[in-house]
Amino acid sequence: MSHHHPDVDVIVVGAGMAGLVCAEHLRRRGRQVVVLEARDQVGGRTAGIEVDGESVDLGGQFIGPGQDRMYALAAELGVTVFPTHTAGANLLVTETGRLSRFRGMVPKLGPLTLLDVAHAQLRLDRLARTVDAEAPWRGPAAAAHDGQTLQTWIDRTLRTRGGRRFLALACRAIWACEPSELSLLHALFYVKAAGSLAAVTDVEGGAQQDRLDGGAYGVAARLAERLGAAIRLNAPVRRIERHDAGVAVSVEDGTTWRARHVVVAVPPPLVARIVFDPPLPAAHDTLLGRLQMGSVIKYVAGYPAPFWRQAGLSGTALSLYDPITMTVDSSPRSGRRGVLIAFVNGAPARDLATRSPEDRRATFLDALGRLFGPQATTPVSFAERNWNEEAFTRGAYSAVFPPGAWTQLGSAWRVPVGRIHWAGSETSPRWYGYIDGAVRSGQAAADAVTRAIDAEPEAGRRS
Amino acid sequence: MSHHHPDVDVIVVGAGMAGLVCAEHLRRRGRQVVVLEARDQVGGRTAGIEVDGESVDLGGQFIGPGQDRMYALAAELGVTVFPTHTAGANLLVTETGRLSRFRGMVPKLGPLTLLDVAHAQLRLDRLARTVDAEAPWRGPAAAAHDGQTLQTWIDRTLRTRGGRRFLALACRAIWACEPSELSLLHALFYVKAAGSLAAVTDVEGGAQQDRLDGGAYGVAARLAERLGAAIRLNAPVRRIERHDAGVAVSVEDGTTWRARHVVVAVPPPLVARIVFDPPLPAAHDTLLGRLQMGSVIKYVAGYPAPFWRQAGLSGTALSLYDPITMTVDSSPRSGRRGVLIAFVNGAPARDLATRSPEDRRATFLDALGRLFGPQATTPVSFAERNWNEEAFTRGAYSAVFPPGAWTQLGSAWRVPVGRIHWAGSETSPRWYGYIDGAVRSGQAAADAVTRAIDAEPEAGRRS
Repeated sequence: MSHHHPDVDVIVVGAGMAGLVCAEHLRRRGRQVVVLEARDQVGGRTAGIEVDGESVDLGGQFIGPGQDRMYALAAELGVTVFPTHTAGANLLVTETGRLSRFRGMVPKLGPLTLLDVAHAQLRLDRLARTVDAEAPWRGPAAAAHDGQTLQTWIDRTLRTRGGRRFLALACRAIWACEPSELSLLHALFYVKAAGSLAAVTDVEGGAQQDRLDGGAYGVAARLAERLGAAIRLNAPVRRIERHDAGVAVSVEDGTTWRARHVVVAVPPPLVARIVFDPPLPAAHDTLLGRLQMGSVIKYVAGYPAPFWRQAGLSGTALSLYDPITMTVDSSPRSGRRGVLIAFVNGAPARDLATRSPEDRRATFLDALGRLFGPQATTPVSFAERNWNEEAFTRGAYSAVFPPGAWTQLGSAWRVPVGRIHWAGSETSPRWYGYIDGAVRSGQAAADAVTRAIDAEPEAGRRS
Repeated sequence: MSHHHPDVDVIVVGAGMAGLVCAEHLRRRGRQVVVLEARDQVGGRTAGIEVDGESVDLGGQFIGPGQDRMYALAAELGVTVFPTHTAGANLLVTETGRLSRFRGMVPKLGPLTLLDVAHAQLRLDRLARTVDAEAPWRGPAAAAHDGQTLQTWIDRTLRTRGGRRFLALACRAIWACEPSELSLLHALFYVKAAGSLAAVTDVEGGAQQDRLDGGAYGVAARLAERLGAAIRLNAPVRRIERHDAGVAVSVEDGTTWRARHVVVAVPPPLVARIVFDPPLPAAHDTLLGRLQMGSVIKYVAGYPAPFWRQAGLSGTALSLYDPITMTVDSSPRSGRRGVLIAFVNGAPARDLATRSPEDRRATFLDALGRLFGPQATTPVSFAERNWNEEAFTRGAYSAVFPPGAWTQLGSAWRVPVGRIHWAGSETSPRWYGYIDGAVRSGQAAADAVTRAIDAEPEAGRRS
């Protein structure tokens, strides 16, 4: 049943943003490329659905200042950007279920709590500046920071119960996990890779500033159009053999592709599930086994109009009470339709996942109703995506490093293994975990493979 | 190429101690069983080599009081036990490379440091007693304990630098990782599962009290003899399909086995690499992705005689200076030959693994020479096993839970998924991580499968 395909120069595993960008760069340089994608569609952690004729993102969707590569890619593909809707008051649901309105990024938490949170943000930002994003395991404080969880740091740094709760909510919003699950050093690295904590958390001036007409998934779709038949869907890669002169990559159906190099551009926990022959070095294998995807369920609710805007609300809400971590107005630019998205992250996502679909929907709509009134409970469309249930992603937004992983195993990070190269947002020291990081990693992998091929003797070349 | 085998009642994946015990229990109850083993030999994390005609363990080798199931299994198979050699003085290499002799379990660390360590041991033992080993995520302190690393606890609890160093050494010796890498709750659970900290650390009265004539691997080999042709070697399982009435398990060569139930008895990180169809529930998948194997390189050096005994030394040494964490006299019962074993664990194991085999050997013999004199540097035989390089184990002694994993995901621990059952030492609430835990888990899985088969309607039975 197994049969061999004609050679290509490079095999790219995974048609997420990193894989697509990598393949497109290589194609432009005259290299023959095939992209093997496990799913029946491209886009990886970007994914789109149609809601009342409008494309809505079920996955990554925002871009912001500093994410130059993604802005450039969108421009090149003719995808325009527009600002995330922010006009109006934001909402906070307190621990006791009380609603309060606020403007900007600072909810009404009481003066002591606010001071406490502001102090913690300042300290986190300062600590992050000391991290070398190219090699987070270096530096005098790396071991101390990597020896503790973010939870330990929160417990030590914040003095108010409200402040600690708010930091836990921020952790869920940013890393889609509980503060107990990630290394303080990883949190600092992530902030450094984004530039600052404000760059991570803010809408205006931050990573949530802009959206893409037609959705982020539209960018992946346009890249895929360019690549055409080079993309093979429904082709889960199960095995990668590496030889002195090339690689052989086998797909579930028994097909084997041969090439000079392979770029593996899937989330780290899924890399660990590919059979490598010979096996990966222990350092790589152990590192891959350490990385943990966050837990996210994303909800989309469509309405005839963004009715909350008339009530003076922005659509942005944070909740210390509901399973929902946050909501955002995700209506199309036109504003003709209303779309609210909501994220359930970390422990609440795991809890909610154990309930029935009806129960989950009811819980979600109940929470929306509390935030935006009875109108919110009767959307004309509804969609849900549990990224942890996706067999070819197994979580979102990104992989986090638990304590000890960066300092113990970081030196294997991004390092090629012979003719095996790595891409994906988790290999990017700039905007790690963001779409922009994925784009950068795809470009970097294409550059590295090109250099490697150019350096090979003619004899080693594909005949 | 793919072909179907006749049905069996139960497929066991992995011929480690858990899988072998499970299969043997099922066979005795009249069930048809096949055991699919990836390697060309059985034993899992027990493994044997011949050193000068004597069998020496390259893997797990000790048993001690409370490990009733392993003692019973050995007795049943006619494998006799004998005490680990302890007569003579133990050695400690201090941070500065100075040698000091001590008796029992308490090295000469200076009075303040000793008090500090004793106090920490007492506290750890007390905290461990509060853990429910059947459900470590329960209990009022579970979240607080699981929110921090063992490192954080050490930093908070110990007041002397020497005490902190010694605790880090103990962590390496017990869990084969750095204190930054595991959850305090996991450390407490592990101690509780063993009974007490003394049960974990002690030779006499503890888990290292006894050894097995012919090695622990000999027990696995005898079990395998009983199972005979039911064991298929060189059969790495790549895919498990589950249906309403049964399972289909596919091996790398394309062979598919069908059965009513499957027991997966391989280390957790390797379970995550099997393709499940339908995919595992997110809770199981995420938990499996969290568990991290320790890093161990085990060394064996053989001599014409146990010459250190004449010098008044036990052969047991701990080092705060060398890459070696500890050495133990592992000579055969007869004492006719001398065998020293040494463990390099955690960070030193990862560092050492990056060096050349010659360099590693020289480093190891250099350390032995410092401990036991020049005679130790010229062994007549030498063997090394890096368990992290083993593609079908990927680490030792056991999987550790990083912070957050027990409390966030523990409820999926050991829980069957339809007709898929779990075995292996990491599924045992008693002697988790020990051979005895593996034996218990194999028996428990056999019981669970038997109950499930007995409860099935006749129509569901194999024709």
